Amino acid sequence: MKIGILGPAGTFSETAAELWLKGKEAGKEEKVEKKYYETIIDISESLIRREIDYGIIPIENSLEGSVGETLDVLSSENSVEMQIVGGVLLPIEIHLLGKGSFTKIKKVVSHPHALAQCKLFIRKRLKVMLKDAEIKSADSTASAAKLASESEEVAALASGEAARRYGLNILAEDVQDKDSVTRFVVLSSSASGTKTAPTGKDKTSVLIYLKDRPGALYDVLGEFAQRKINLTKIESRPSKRALGDYMFHIDCEGHIEDATIKEALKGVERKVAMLKILGAYPKAKNV
Amino acid sequence: MKIGILGPAGTFSETAAELWLKGKEAGKEEKVEKKYYETIIDISESLIRREIDYGIIPIENSLEGSVGETLDVLSSENSVEMQIVGGVLLPIEIHLLGKGSFTKIKKVVSHPHALAQCKLFIRKRLKVMLKDAEIKSADSTASAAKLASESEEVAALASGEAARRYGLNILAEDVQDKDSVTRFVVLSSSASGTKTAPTGKDKTSVLIYLKDRPGALYDVLGEFAQRKINLTKIESRPSKRALGDYMFHIDCEGHIEDATIKEALKGVERKVAMLKILGAYPKAKNV
Repeated sequence: MKIGILGPAGTFSETAAELWLKGKEAGKEEKVEKKYYETIIDISESLIRREIDYGIIPIENSLEGSVGETLDVLSSENSVEMQIVGGVLLPIEIHLLGKGSFTKIKKVVSHPHALAQCKLFIRKRLKVMLKDAEIKSADSTASAAKLASESEEVAALASGEAARRYGLNILAEDVQDKDSVTRFVVLSSSASGTKTAPTGKDKTSVLIYLKDRPGALYDVLGEFAQRKINLTKIESRPSKRALGDYMFHIDCEGHIEDATIKEALKGVERKVAMLKILGAYPKAKNV
Repeated sequence: MKIGILGPAGTFSETAAELWLKGKEAGKEEKVEKKYYETIIDISESLIRREIDYGIIPIENSLEGSVGETLDVLSSENSVEMQIVGGVLLPIEIHLLGKGSFTKIKKVVSHPHALAQCKLFIRKRLKVMLKDAEIKSADSTASAAKLASESEEVAALASGEAARRYGLNILAEDVQDKDSVTRFVVLSSSASGTKTAPTGKDKTSVLIYLKDRPGALYDVLGEFAQRKINLTKIESRPSKRALGDYMFHIDCEGHIEDATIKEALKGVERKVAMLKILGAYPKAKNV
């Protein structure tokens, strides 16, 4: 079984993949091959070409919000060839990693999302204690760690896994401004025939495109509210046609095969310009 | 009059500021002093300290969606000391800029948002024609242009204004994947006493925090739908308390002093855990 992950080795995505595999593989013996990709789009395209069986990509962080690239992949034309088959919640613990000592640091590197999650640490500690230290973007937290492993003057904001992979010391632990959790979704190809049967604790993800009139969203939400279906997420995303023209990503509790969910979605379908079912799958349970 | 802008000189923010000033200053003579800041938070803090009269910050792009840092500034505790007093729409035209010729390029730099908006150009043209070219993040499109002005081997994805500022050639024009528009908001300090009177073509921005029960958002939207008030934006944003716990940014057509808007917001206030009025201001009209 092949799974696509955002690389290089040591990213938070890899830790998430391991968590998901642990849940899935309980009791089974299956050889897992990890393949690393540079971008979320690369993973989705590889999945559609059936080069991998699963792809795991970050969709949302409790502090930073949604990952735009993932929402775009899920709403692209290609998305009819993919489905969401699972989810994982990963607590994000970011450390300051380096080869040498704190005082030698001249540059701190990390992925822009990790830099954003450590804003206060950077402003109130790094910039105060290391006045001239530069803060720079890297392609991933893991590639930041790799850079740090090449020079004592470079420190990285990255995971504990990255510290182990690249032989770095943890110079400051848990430096994120606030604890956060990232939700990842696991995708498979629609053509693979993988089905996720109802477990009793499921979630269904859909994408809708509204008709352009006042109250359109209100009417759609009514289909869920009348049936007391709980929405765990509602997120607008530009349709890319014009400013102020949105699609909505909606997650609700329940499985598409439950009678009430089926009825609600039938009602929704009559009221929208487009409804796409992204998947029904067990809720993430590891947090 | 002092206005805070994301720097350095030559950013898209500066072009937006000039557009807004042109509309505002029609017929008036007032000396304008621009102050450049590194981050959106720096602008908001400077505004609260009354070091500047206005701050202009990007809030939303028609392709990339919302600017998280701006939504966070508007929903922070500090935001009671700020108000939105205007908006500007700016079409984003990104060019490939360099000192020398296309074939000498070894590195292409830009702000991550601009890189994201030129994904296809990078994948289908740059990576094909310049196989070994590195793609790197910079702090802004303007600082990318500055880097490009220092070496023939570096090209930047940035604005025409940046080309002029840093004496660069346009090596490839309009290379964004799709045309897009960025909306900027203009903030002033609440304490400044600036009021924006109704013009007949206004918008009101509010922030709500829902009570935690199924149908809560549905009930709130009902207050607008019943009164046929058009929502031009609804966007969820993590409350930063827990995953799946959201605040909503809502923009509606009309001015807070219009009777129907006033009534709708009174109704909303009774149904939510928190309502904050961010501002009422003329709709952006330059596009």
